[in-house]
Amino acid sequence: MGRPVTLFTGQWTDLPLEQVAKKAGGWGFDGLELASSGDHFNVQQALDDPDYIKSRWDILNKYGLRCYAISNHLVGQAVCDIIDDRHKSILPEYIWGDGEPEGVRQRAAKEMMDTARAAARFGVSIVTGFTGSSIWPYLYSFPPNDFGKIEQGYRDFADRWEPIMDVFEQEGVKFALEVHPTEIAYDFVTTEKTLKAIGNHPNFGVNFDPSHLIPQFLEPVAFLEEFGDCIYHVHIKDAKRRLNGRRSILGSHLNFGGANRGWDFVSPGHGDVDFKELFRALNRIGYTGPVSVEWEDTGVSREWGAPDALQFVRRYDFAPSDTAFDAAFRRK
Amino acid sequence: MGRPVTLFTGQWTDLPLEQVAKKAGGWGFDGLELASSGDHFNVQQALDDPDYIKSRWDILNKYGLRCYAISNHLVGQAVCDIIDDRHKSILPEYIWGDGEPEGVRQRAAKEMMDTARAAARFGVSIVTGFTGSSIWPYLYSFPPNDFGKIEQGYRDFADRWEPIMDVFEQEGVKFALEVHPTEIAYDFVTTEKTLKAIGNHPNFGVNFDPSHLIPQFLEPVAFLEEFGDCIYHVHIKDAKRRLNGRRSILGSHLNFGGANRGWDFVSPGHGDVDFKELFRALNRIGYTGPVSVEWEDTGVSREWGAPDALQFVRRYDFAPSDTAFDAAFRRK
Amino acid sequence: MGRPVTLFTGQWTDLPLEQVAKKAGGWGFDGLELASSGDHFNVQQALDDPDYIKSRWDILNKYGLRCYAISNHLVGQAVCDIIDDRHKSILPEYIWGDGEPEGVRQRAAKEMMDTARAAARFGVSIVTGFTGSSIWPYLYSFPPNDFGKIEQGYRDFADRWEPIMDVFEQEGVKFALEVHPTEIAYDFVTTEKTLKAIGNHPNFGVNFDPSHLIPQFLEPVAFLEEFGDCIYHVHIKDAKRRLNGRRSILGSHLNFGGANRGWDFVSPGHGDVDFKELFRALNRIGYTGPVSVEWEDTGVSREWGAPDALQFVRRYDFAPSDTAFDAAFRRK
Amino acid sequence: MGRPVTLFTGQWTDLPLEQVAKKAGGWGFDGLELASSGDHFNVQQALDDPDYIKSRWDILNKYGLRCYAISNHLVGQAVCDIIDDRHKSILPEYIWGDGEPEGVRQRAAKEMMDTARAAARFGVSIVTGFTGSSIWPYLYSFPPNDFGKIEQGYRDFADRWEPIMDVFEQEGVKFALEVHPTEIAYDFVTTEKTLKAIGNHPNFGVNFDPSHLIPQFLEPVAFLEEFGDCIYHVHIKDAKRRLNGRRSILGSHLNFGGANRGWDFVSPGHGDVDFKELFRALNRIGYTGPVSVEWEDTGVSREWGAPDALQFVRRYDFAPSDTAFDAAFRRK
Amino acid sequence: MGRPVTLFTGQWTDLPLEQVAKKAGGWGFDGLELASSGDHFNVQQALDDPDYIKSRWDILNKYGLRCYAISNHLVGQAVCDIIDDRHKSILPEYIWGDGEPEGVRQRAAKEMMDTARAAARFGVSIVTGFTGSSIWPYLYSFPPNDFGKIEQGYRDFADRWEPIMDVFEQEGVKFALEVHPTEIAYDFVTTEKTLKAIGNHPNFGVNFDPSHLIPQFLEPVAFLEEFGDCIYHVHIKDAKRRLNGRRSILGSHLNFGGANRGWDFVSPGHGDVDFKELFRALNRIGYTGPVSVEWEDTGVSREWGAPDALQFVRRYDFAPSDTAFDAAFRRK
Amino acid sequence: MGRPVTLFTGQWTDLPLEQVAKKAGGWGFDGLELASSGDHFNVQQALDDPDYIKSRWDILNKYGLRCYAISNHLVGQAVCDIIDDRHKSILPEYIWGDGEPEGVRQRAAKEMMDTARAAARFGVSIVTGFTGSSIWPYLYSFPPNDFGKIEQGYRDFADRWEPIMDVFEQEGVKFALEVHPTEIAYDFVTTEKTLKAIGNHPNFGVNFDPSHLIPQFLEPVAFLEEFGDCIYHVHIKDAKRRLNGRRSILGSHLNFGGANRGWDFVSPGHGDVDFKELFRALNRIGYTGPVSVEWEDTGVSREWGAPDALQFVRRYDFAPSDTAFDAAFRRK
Repeated sequence: MGRPVTLFTGQWTDLPLEQVAKKAGGWGFDGLELASSGDHFNVQQALDDPDYIKSRWDILNKYGLRCYAISNHLVGQAVCDIIDDRHKSILPEYIWGDGEPEGVRQRAAKEMMDTARAAARFGVSIVTGFTGSSIWPYLYSFPPNDFGKIEQGYRDFADRWEPIMDVFEQEGVKFALEVHPTEIAYDFVTTEKTLKAIGNHPNFGVNFDPSHLIPQFLEPVAFLEEFGDCIYHVHIKDAKRRLNGRRSILGSHLNFGGANRGWDFVSPGHGDVDFKELFRALNRIGYTGPVSVEWEDTGVSREWGAPDALQFVRRYDFAPSDTAFDAAFRRK
Repeated sequence: MGRPVTLFTGQWTDLPLEQVAKKAGGWGFDGLELASSGDHFNVQQALDDPDYIKSRWDILNKYGLRCYAISNHLVGQAVCDIIDDRHKSILPEYIWGDGEPEGVRQRAAKEMMDTARAAARFGVSIVTGFTGSSIWPYLYSFPPNDFGKIEQGYRDFADRWEPIMDVFEQEGVKFALEVHPTEIAYDFVTTEKTLKAIGNHPNFGVNFDPSHLIPQFLEPVAFLEEFGDCIYHVHIKDAKRRLNGRRSILGSHLNFGGANRGWDFVSPGHGDVDFKELFRALNRIGYTGPVSVEWEDTGVSREWGAPDALQFVRRYDFAPSDTAFDAAFRRK
Repeated sequence: MGRPVTLFTGQWTDLPLEQVAKKAGGWGFDGLELASSGDHFNVQQALDDPDYIKSRWDILNKYGLRCYAISNHLVGQAVCDIIDDRHKSILPEYIWGDGEPEGVRQRAAKEMMDTARAAARFGVSIVTGFTGSSIWPYLYSFPPNDFGKIEQGYRDFADRWEPIMDVFEQEGVKFALEVHPTEIAYDFVTTEKTLKAIGNHPNFGVNFDPSHLIPQFLEPVAFLEEFGDCIYHVHIKDAKRRLNGRRSILGSHLNFGGANRGWDFVSPGHGDVDFKELFRALNRIGYTGPVSVEWEDTGVSREWGAPDALQFVRRYDFAPSDTAFDAAFRRK
Repeated sequence: MGRPVTLFTGQWTDLPLEQVAKKAGGWGFDGLELASSGDHFNVQQALDDPDYIKSRWDILNKYGLRCYAISNHLVGQAVCDIIDDRHKSILPEYIWGDGEPEGVRQRAAKEMMDTARAAARFGVSIVTGFTGSSIWPYLYSFPPNDFGKIEQGYRDFADRWEPIMDVFEQEGVKFALEVHPTEIAYDFVTTEKTLKAIGNHPNFGVNFDPSHLIPQFLEPVAFLEEFGDCIYHVHIKDAKRRLNGRRSILGSHLNFGGANRGWDFVSPGHGDVDFKELFRALNRIGYTGPVSVEWEDTGVSREWGAPDALQFVRRYDFAPSDTAFDAAFRRK
Repeated sequence: MGRPVTLFTGQWTDLPLEQVAKKAGGWGFDGLELASSGDHFNVQQALDDPDYIKSRWDILNKYGLRCYAISNHLVGQAVCDIIDDRHKSILPEYIWGDGEPEGVRQRAAKEMMDTARAAARFGVSIVTGFTGSSIWPYLYSFPPNDFGKIEQGYRDFADRWEPIMDVFEQEGVKFALEVHPTEIAYDFVTTEKTLKAIGNHPNFGVNFDPSHLIPQFLEPVAFLEEFGDCIYHVHIKDAKRRLNGRRSILGSHLNFGGANRGWDFVSPGHGDVDFKELFRALNRIGYTGPVSVEWEDTGVSREWGAPDALQFVRRYDFAPSDTAFDAAFRRK
Repeated sequence: MGRPVTLFTGQWTDLPLEQVAKKAGGWGFDGLELASSGDHFNVQQALDDPDYIKSRWDILNKYGLRCYAISNHLVGQAVCDIIDDRHKSILPEYIWGDGEPEGVRQRAAKEMMDTARAAARFGVSIVTGFTGSSIWPYLYSFPPNDFGKIEQGYRDFADRWEPIMDVFEQEGVKFALEVHPTEIAYDFVTTEKTLKAIGNHPNFGVNFDPSHLIPQFLEPVAFLEEFGDCIYHVHIKDAKRRLNGRRSILGSHLNFGGANRGWDFVSPGHGDVDFKELFRALNRIGYTGPVSVEWEDTGVSREWGAPDALQFVRRYDFAPSDTAFDAAFRRK
């Protein structure tokens, strides 16, 4: 009756899809959001080999799971980024190649086009992912930014993603950018700039993940109300601020899970997202698509976290009212 | 009776020193923290030309002003930074040169050594400034940081600044790093790492400016208590968080003064710094050096802001107690 | 073992009682608080026709439900109000009649007397409801109120309700006013005035509903402690403040459920009432009567909300301690 | 150098203008906002008698005072209100007449037209005031509002005020509605509805008074940013919330100054308005008109409050910055 | 025009009265609250020697100072306390004697009677002070308190202080207990118990010092409203909570001024007391007596703190309003 | 899979162990923390009589319960305390004896040594308990403390407990002091002093009970991070602050459960402890021992509270993550 609840497989790619599907099915998930990584979903195989596509569906069907979205966050990140060593570890070899930055970016862009094509062949109409950003390092304006350069960053994004979006349009697939620090859009102001830069392309929208708004002190419900028409996919993840006057909201160059970080990702319901309000807002904007659980919590094991998050979502994803309660007061 | 109050001239270098000194003297400041920019303080001239040094002092003396510190923030920034176009606009031509990054960094390092020498000749024992950082762009760990690279950033800093510190030691001058986003130290964790990286070099300490801690939700008083021994200079500036669920604490790639920023710099007393507690803490750690007003507030004119800040400091820089009040209760 | 949990049928009068009872019984409610509306409870039929009374009990018994209270909020509202078109839609035709205000008020008063009589015949000793108020429009004192007129409003209330209370006394039935904006009592100050105005009549007390206190920033637990002796019935409903600097706590003349309202009603546990503290306070004041779930939440369907609220109450309506824990520490 | 600071004479009409002007001049005010009451400003005399106008200016000039605005709050209130006894005490006899509501409203409307004419002859281009509202009593939707009636309330307002605005336009005078509970506009939502209802008439704007926003939990700075173009006049007054769980934000039908009220008006700087932020916002929207001190604080005498407020405003009405501080960092 | 502002000399008894009076007069105080210690005020000399009384007044008159109250906190403390070594250091030798507890208590009680007599001869009608408490060590109920013993503590207080109050009554002098941890009354509950225990003796009231309420999270204004009739004297001192999750509100057995304490005393305006509200409440309850500045702030020197506090009080001790502002709206 | 959950029997000693064990086993607890009181655990019998030990284990085994810790809070309290009547009611007769303080303290010390021996014979390696404190009554420094006496209190503690700890060491048993007001350690500062005073004796550690930190405004998670190595046992209990400006955080000499107390103990999840964060911190410090539910909540019956707390702990005692989620992002 509620929205379908899927499990995002991005944090499970060390396991074969079969194992992940078995677990997820057993816990009661409705489906999987497949990561383009490990053996979960291979873009090139899906393009070349109909049997491959069937093999993925066979696994899903075996455990009673559906699939509404393919994720290709890692490759998308390389499209606009200033490329360095960190990208090597997240990209397939054939995209990294010799690592020459512009080459990497162009191969990544082409792969994103292929991801749209592969998704279409797989029968799925949403690709979730990242865009990267050439201006993220200029987050703090010192040495003083030339703000013209910032504008140029948005044009660079548009130049690289418009051709990709054309393919998405041809294939009838939508791209849902996860609004997130390090991306071209990470808050209200930059999401608005991003949508405008790409001419409000109808195939370009948002993968709404409230956990990235919390460390910025942004209100997730307000985001849904402002960008309601562009919400194409939803991640369920939480974040918690742990500020005590000694921990910086900027993270202190510490890895996630560090006791001295000013904030961290946590299982849904363990953090600062008000999910009751969030589901009400999803009702209000009419979002009926999947809500996809992304486990990212270094304080709990994923085996505990995934079914706990499912149970959490089932509890709060209530149906909207179809009766105005004052109406019942009136006499006929 | 209180600490000397100086005016930092970094935001006044469009005016000749004479004019700035006249204003500051008229407002009642005790001295100036001279920026190494404009005609305020020229490092190379100070090294080469005793008359130049005298000319600066003549101006200061004419308006009854002292000088405790020379600032060379802009050149210091280039020592560790990944150099790009932004640095060209903040560096003297002879340091920028052809702009080849490693060359810029080395010329900047040499200039910082010269700054120590020039300060010594000028009769001043503190240089305030920045260090830059090769790892600032890796603030948010996506693509996932190799945290070994972060450690390497601190070694890079140490490698570049240890030789500089040797010169400072020879000259009897202290360097006070302004703990600040974009620098190698910007919060508690990174200040501790920085001090350790440079072997707790006695000539390397902190230019404490509480305004940079506010947007990180750090508590300035706790910082003073933790790093009290290393506080070599103090800036008086304030910042205000203006979060409302739609403005990001990260700043949204907007310039200072933008209405949609989640925080901004403001005149002291107009923001979130608790200066009463701050001055008590300065008393407690025994800091008796200058407190230097840095005007940075796009909402008020500097002509209004500078004397207002002076008056503000005079009001709160109270003398510490030398009587335990319970003692007075006791009978002899 | 805990208090009986009933469902208030006021928001379900579009359905026949049989259907509502079937649902409520199936969800596990202990009983119903019957609204005097639809076919749920008809005051005049109950007075005239013993078979009618039996027919209502037959339905209740069929689904294992009890009944502790009859509601007649809508007619009660007309007793003191300045009558206008809005009342026509909430009153039975024979009370509205020609709509001449004073006639409406007197017929409403007589109906409330009959409600006491009907409740007594039905075997129920509590009537919940509203009183209306002739001074509610003078909430904000501009043009400046003549505060003598305010006092007059309380006398008007007493003049109209004292004769009604005489009938309640004769019938052995208590009236429980729901403290609520638009009524003669809506907060601490006005509840105290109201009780005093009616001479602390023992048959006049309060239907405690915490949701109406939340938008006024009143503390429900403090209300229970102050008016503990007069709490004759309890509604379980919640409210949530959603203020963000743009939404007025006054409601902006927007209907419930509007995104721009500063507060709204929500299912218990979804709002700002601290129900754990509330149930402790009910224990402390010794209230053992029914707690009646009133569904009013435009964000969730009533079919989801009613059983969810029941489960919520069952979870928190814990038994009070009968052992002082320190006692167990002592040796015999 | 800052904005002119005037004193609103509405709370001083028990004294002759001469006395008020003498006091205000002595305290250092720049001018008066004259109330159309007492002998301060008589609309009909100003229309009929050029000597009267001169007599008022003579008094103002004698004490070095200017005048930028005429207030006619009390008569304006009667234009849309549901008239009752309270209006009799705030209206001139010739407007109250026999008190028949529609007659009162029409005479009040005519007087507002005359106020525009009188202001023009007096040489002043702003009239501040109230509009009244036919729907204020329907603030809380019980008995349930027919929301069509609410819309009708805005049309009633437009029907009555459009002809008045035509006269204002002819006379070159602006009307500044004080956004305030009991008026047709009292918050963000209703201000937007009001401006739209009157077709964004260029002569109709807002008299911004932050004190009325505080008890509604509205943010004054956000109001300035949203309605910046329509701010035609500014009142300086403050309000303080005193909620403790027992005092209602609705005021409990208690007069101002009552200890049990949940909020009250107070002198500027004694309440919850953040005036530092407010003056920055006035700078940002480019408002350069008068700021008018309205004394309304039952806890301090007006003789103490008025000069204290003046001093307060002088302290915070700082000039905006004309230098971007980053600019000073750049080398030429 | 406002209330007289005095300086409490308890923290200045290391200096001769002449010196203190000279300083206080020079700063502009209206008078002194004399401590019965040092040479400030000697109870036995004042009883025996009219010249002594004259000598004190001569000093006061020389510096234009008045005296409204004599303090005898230290001796009063010994009346009910469980006596130990700490008392030796705060008592005169003739009261400590051999230190046998009951003897000390009785000599202290007699001295308090003499203090009333001495104050009367000195021409002053208020004695401020402490009572001590035999039950303070049982603050936390472990080992579990026998609460009958607590009641006994209040009877012990009454038994010891009733005879003292009889002398106060005969002499026409009032005793003002400073409500304070370690005393028989330290909060709302215990003040009520104390007043009741002593039969609401008209000569027994409160020396209101808001600083002792702050670390208990009590609201000073509410205290004034509840005990308004018994406020016989007022101290002006402030306290600040410095809780950060690591510092206990209980003080950690650390002396005042310790950086790790959870709260501390501070100069007025530097802490958590809302003095604007406090002075309004003093207006409301009609207190017109002296307000006495007690310097206790280890972070500022007393030479800085005393005149600063005086200036602070002068700023906020505003006159109450004698005009209802709505009244001014009405036409005659 | 998680930590074992035990029930502390200290509040159940009015019932025979058999009954308590039956209840606890039925509710699903994993074991009991036995109080040395009633027939639960008799130290002297356990030393003398192997059959007694067997009889206790027979009961435990019958209901499938384990035992990890013996509590002897009451006797431990007498070791350092200033003895008075309250101790008589909590001590066995043979320890109280004639009540002469030093004799009581020495017999209590000997009994604690025997408790270590008895625990060892019983096969349990942890004793939980209190130490008492000779300086607790000097919590508030008036009359001014001689802070040398405070230091002496810590030496007194060390002198009395070092010999006890020697026995614990010989027996291979650890003592876990419950950090708690009235004990030698009650917060961060005093825990550090205590551990240092006893020379960081490896057999002396902490029984961590977050409920005692809440009324002091201390952060339980920070405590775990600071003293992680010394956490030898954990109690699960909660506390809630109920401050409203009229209730003191000091407790007002009121017994637990009083409506006017500023704080009280409550069942876990009903108070201010953030248990989600607490269990994460237990994971982080590597604590794998028992978590022991201590029912102390006058607002709920212990029959309701104990199983509710068990269910609460089972819900939140999640397994820690063994996968870094970023790792899964990386390609092989």
